[in-house]
Formats: sequence, structure tokens, C-alpha cells
Amino acid sequence: MENLENSTDCKETASPLNNSGSLLNNTDSRPDGRAMGFVLVHAGAGYHSESKAKEYKHVCKRACQKAVDRLRAGGMALEAVTAALIELEDSPFTNAGTGSNLNLSGEIECDASIMDGKSLNYGAVGALSGIKNPVLVARRLLSETQKGKLSAGRIPPCFLVGKGAEQWAISHGIPACPTEKMTTKFSLSGYKRNKRKMELAEQVEMKRKRQSCEHENDFGCLEPVGDIMVEGEENNSACLDTVGAVVVDREGNVAAAVSSGGLAMKHPGRVGQAAHYGCGCWAENARDISLYSTAVSTSGSGEHLIRTMLARECSTAMQAENTHQALLEAMQNKFISSPFLAGEDCVLGGVIVLRCCTCGEAQRSEDIQAVLVEFLWSHTTESMCVGYMSAQDSKARVSSSYI
Amino acid sequence: MENLENSTDCKETASPLNNSGSLLNNTDSRPDGRAMGFVLVHAGAGYHSESKAKEYKHVCKRACQKAVDRLRAGGMALEAVTAALIELEDSPFTNAGTGSNLNLSGEIECDASIMDGKSLNYGAVGALSGIKNPVLVARRLLSETQKGKLSAGRIPPCFLVGKGAEQWAISHGIPACPTEKMTTKFSLSGYKRNKRKMELAEQVEMKRKRQSCEHENDFGCLEPVGDIMVEGEENNSACLDTVGAVVVDREGNVAAAVSSGGLAMKHPGRVGQAAHYGCGCWAENARDISLYSTAVSTSGSGEHLIRTMLARECSTAMQAENTHQALLEAMQNKFISSPFLAGEDCVLGGVIVLRCCTCGEAQRSEDIQAVLVEFLWSHTTESMCVGYMSAQDSKARVSSSYI
Repeated sequence: MENLENSTDCKETASPLNNSGSLLNNTDSRPDGRAMGFVLVHAGAGYHSESKAKEYKHVCKRACQKAVDRLRAGGMALEAVTAALIELEDSPFTNAGTGSNLNLSGEIECDASIMDGKSLNYGAVGALSGIKNPVLVARRLLSETQKGKLSAGRIPPCFLVGKGAEQWAISHGIPACPTEKMTTKFSLSGYKRNKRKMELAEQVEMKRKRQSCEHENDFGCLEPVGDIMVEGEENNSACLDTVGAVVVDREGNVAAAVSSGGLAMKHPGRVGQAAHYGCGCWAENARDISLYSTAVSTSGSGEHLIRTMLARECSTAMQAENTHQALLEAMQNKFISSPFLAGEDCVLGGVIVLRCCTCGEAQRSEDIQAVLVEFLWSHTTESMCVGYMSAQDSKARVSSSYI
Repeated sequence: MENLENSTDCKETASPLNNSGSLLNNTDSRPDGRAMGFVLVHAGAGYHSESKAKEYKHVCKRACQKAVDRLRAGGMALEAVTAALIELEDSPFTNAGTGSNLNLSGEIECDASIMDGKSLNYGAVGALSGIKNPVLVARRLLSETQKGKLSAGRIPPCFLVGKGAEQWAISHGIPACPTEKMTTKFSLSGYKRNKRKMELAEQVEMKRKRQSCEHENDFGCLEPVGDIMVEGEENNSACLDTVGAVVVDREGNVAAAVSSGGLAMKHPGRVGQAAHYGCGCWAENARDISLYSTAVSTSGSGEHLIRTMLARECSTAMQAENTHQALLEAMQNKFISSPFLAGEDCVLGGVIVLRCCTCGEAQRSEDIQAVLVEFLWSHTTESMCVGYMSAQDSKARVSSSYI
């Protein structure tokens, strides 16, 4: 299929979903001839200050460029999405790989997963320490799965966690990296500040309980305690900044990946959506001509994204005629108002979505085929930073979208 | 709702799905008046010798009895399903809790999860060592989720793995248990035998590769090596024997749980379907009168069950009119012939399924309400052992179903 010609089609709109706090953008690139694919990345749905947003834009641009470099060199979607993720993980500003949030014990434990829309294979790691690029381990797990059974008929794993995952990575040639090298001054200062805040919150809680026993219903004198998850302080803005990417290659294959350091001050061993099948990312090539190929990557509060299986839900929704409407409805009905999150007061998340199909009008000859790519993002968080680039673009475009 | 009267309705059939290797049973109990709920358990879909089947039948009976004891004492579905799982985990013959398969390093690492159909809350542990009853940790995670946020607004975890999960369990009052106490002579002898077999397989593989270099395509002299997963030896029969249960209580609430020691000789840190949301178990109360409440628990090859999200798929299928047909189709289309398992030559798994609804004709008064319970199981493995009991039964019934 080396002789296929792909094109991408374009329009740009922004339609905030005012009544739910969700924002949806749909932005496609020009239908200007030969292309080798397309990439859309995110540096997380969260709460970014303007100054942090600048850093995120830079890393999104670099990640797009890395993916496009691979696509132009003839790489497939899986290679390109991995290249984008490595760049996003390596940034000290994102909450993935280097610069990840520290957990309660002051350690880095990362989650990551990757899915190949062509083979529908999947690889994931959870609570992984000591490896610079968790996505590389997920990718290697996926590759090993494709090789068939292990010795004596054992089924190869698709999901490894903790120390076992680290050992597996090292035994498969992925170098170890000391946690100190992945810890940044930002993540360390954020940890110290959050630790103080937690201690203060616990002291206040104990005092409240004591007072409650002495003077029931007398809480008037207590100050409200800030929320680790939603505070707007500069150095804490990375709290929800899972990163991810979705790619379509020249053959129309899709791939998706996601990587996260998880929630700040999480309990050791906590695994979020980034390692969870159907929740962190999803990629599925169209199985017949009537369907779209779809790829999704999510960001936000891991527990909410797990319980709603948001990546797979958005993928399913993208088979509808109107992508804008379908994604808004999916975010509203399958996430914000999901029965699986009844009782949750603050449903935080974002998605990037890509769908593509062989374009009917572009079937100009048997040899030349066009792929129509549509891409969207939506989030319920205050902001989300995304970047996108097609293989015929000279540079990536980025957007920090704010509600 | 203390004054509700529940009944269960009954017929018994067995219809082997000859062309796919799946077996489907549908067996309901008598509509004989007052009841307080119903339980269906499984001791795994795998390869059981007749002598092992006897042990499994005993433990299934005891597990049903434990669940029914809780239901009769006024316990809800979540309590009853936990009681059944503890009994199944405590049996040295099942591959869950005590007697679990040992991993490559000769250690026990367990997966377990539980879901409450009423709240749709969920708790799971993966690669957990040193805790006698992994289901208790999953249950406690679920309970803590229901209490709301942690100090300083942190979201409580729903999924913990490895050492962190063990520490969390102990800090929440669940006692530690030395691995030696959970290791049985069966699991240890199985480990030693499998280790020898793996070493032999690897030697043969190395020899094959060497010969392949010397005499390409000359493999004639090599003996085939037995498959750890499918051999029929007595002491190895527990390989796939994940355990699980589904329950409906007097109020019509459903709950499901699953627990597993995972594949024999798995890599440390490998997490299977028993810890995976939507894959190991599923429970969902009907959200309106037109729907059924459903509960599902799965068993088999974890990687296959993850990639097909079989628990949730079967739950969705159970909204169809004909449960028999719907489960057969789900097992065929969403598992055996699933595009997510294309290329897999041996798709091994089993499910137990329960669905219930408020029975129209039984709405005899405003105070008295009947719940119609239907339950089924299906498996592609050679055999599956199940037990079931309603709260008005004097003893459990068990079945070892063979293809």
C-alpha cells in the first residue's frame, strides 16, 4: 500500500458546552494532497496557569514533530505514537515519566498503555518505578504478545505492575533509571507542599471531630482546607496532566497511547486509567467499509475514567454521523452524568479523539486512496493543552483550551 | 423493603454448543414462596479430573451455604458475595487465596475484584502477596470509595497493586499472612513440575534453533513439549481455576466478585482479568423497570478475558429476551470469534451469569414483590464447576459440566 495518497480535511470551531463545563473543539487540517498520516497529542486536562501553558505548548509541538518524523520515514501508527509519548514523558513539566507526581511515600510510580488499532493488541504497565519511559515497556509488552506463546505454552502478559514490571523491562533490554533522575525540583516542591497541606487537613479534621464530640454541629470556627486536586498554584498545576497521543498512518492504521504519573499523593500501588484497558486509550481500525477507524486517549481523574471506561465509550460514539454532537453527548451522558459516577461532585477529565475513513469522493483511481481524518477534543477540566500536525504540515499547531 | 417476598423460577436444560466447544446451562430453582436471595458460584473453568471435581463440588457447596447464611441473616448482596469468595479462596484446591498457583519466582500474587450493582462501586487488587483473602481488600477498597474523598480532597483509590496494596490492606486492619501459609503441597509440587517442564521446553527450543541454523527446516527429531496450560495431569488441574460468585439479595440488588492466583508460572507483576474492571466481574442493578439487573463472574485465560471485556459484554447481552441464545451468541461472537482475539488458537474461558427482574405477574400487592432470577453458565474449557442455592433451599446444588 505504498502508493496510497492520504489527505486530511479541515475546519476549525470551538463550542463550549456551557451547561456542563465541557469544551469541545473540532479542528481538521487542509486537504492539500499527499500526506503520510496525522498526529494529535495532549499534555493533560487539568488546571494550567498561563505560564505553564507555554511549556505545554512547546512539548506538544515537539511531540507532534517526533511522531511526524516517524510517519515521514515510513513508520507505522504504533511507532509514531510511541515517539510522541517518549517526548511527552521526557518533559519535566508533564505528569508522566520524568517530572511525574510523587506518591504518598515520595516515590514515582507510573502507569502507561498503548493500543494498536490494526492488530487490536494492547500493552500496559501500572505502578512502575525506575524506568524513564513507561510507554516503552507497554509497547514492548504489546510487541511480545504479537510473537505468540512463551516457552511451554504460557500466554505472554499484556499487563504488568510494580517491581515485576520493572524487572521484566530490564530483562527485555530497557535500561533502569534511578528515581532521583526522574524527580524534578517542581515535583519535589509540589510533594513537600502537598504533604504539609495533607498534614494540616488531617489536623483540622481531627480537631473538627474532637469539637464535634464536645459541641455537636459547631464547626463555625474552622477554616476550609484547600483541595490538592483543584488548587490553582503554579507548581501544582501538573496534578492531572496525564499525557497521550493518537495517530493515523499512511495506510489508515490507528494507534493510541497514554502515560501518567498518577494523582499527587496517591497511595503507593494505586493504578489509574492510564494502565486500564478501555479507559486510558483505545484504537480500533475499521473492520469494514461502513465503519470508521477510531483512536482515543484520555486524561483526568483516573478513578472516574476507569469507572466510565471513557476511552472505549468515546471510540464507540465516534461511529455516529455528527462527531461534534456525538462527543458532546458521550462526555455528558457517559461521563459527567454517568450512573457510574452518581454522587461524585467533581467529574474531571478530557479526551482527544481521532476518526478516519476511506473518503468516498477521493476514490479517484484504484491506486490512489484518500483518508479523511477528523479530530476532536473535549474536557470538563478548566483547561487542556493539545497539539496536532499532519505529515504535510511544516510545523505543529497547538491550543490551550480553557473553559 | 424488609417485607418483600422474592421467588425464583425454575427449569433445567443443558445445551452443548458442539461447533465451538462451548457449553451452556440454564438452571433456576423452584418458585416456592418466601426467599431472601440467591447465589451462584464457580470454582473455575479449566481441566478437572474426576477426583478433583469432587473437591470443587464440596467447596462450591460450602461457598453457597456461606452466602445464603448471610442472606438469611438479612445481609445484602455485597456481604453475601464476599462470604462466598472467602470460602472459595480458603480452599487449598482452588487457584485463589490459599493454594494459588505460584509465579515464576515461586511466589503467590493474587488478583481479585468486586462490584456492587446498587452503587456501581468497584474495588480491585492486583499482584497482591501476603494477604489470605484478597477479596477482602477489594471489598474494603470499595467500601472506602463510598465514604467520599480522603484528606485534602484526594480521590480514594479503587485499584491497588503489589506491595502498596499489601501495605494499604494492613493499615486498614486486614491481617498479613506469610506466603508459606498460603502455599500448599499441591501448588508447590505443581510449581516444581512446571519449572522442570519450562526448562525442558527452553532446552528443546534452544536445540531447535541451533539445529535450525545448522539444517534449516529440519525439526523432525524434536519431541513436542507439553503445554502448561492444557495438560491433564492431576496436580496441575487448578491452572485456570479462578473462582467467583454472583448474588441477588432480598431487595433485588446484585453483586459480583472474582479472585485468582493467576496463570501458573506467570511473570511476577502480571495482572489478569480478575483485577480488571469490566473483565473479571460485573454487577449492575436495573436502572429502570424495563431492564434486568445483571451480575457476571468470569474464569479462564486472563489475557483473553481482558481483551474481550467478557464480564461486561455478557452483562450487556443479558438484556436480550432469550438468555440462552444471548449468552451463546455472546460467547461465540464476543469471545471465541472476537476480533480482539484474532490469531489466538485456544480461547479458554467461562462465565457465570445471573439476571433478575421484578416479576410482573408476581406484583400481587404493593407490599409483596417477587424477583424472578435466571442464571446460566457457559465455558469453552473442558470443564467448569458451579454451585447454586436460593435462600429457601436446604442445601446447595452443584454441577461439574464437561464438554
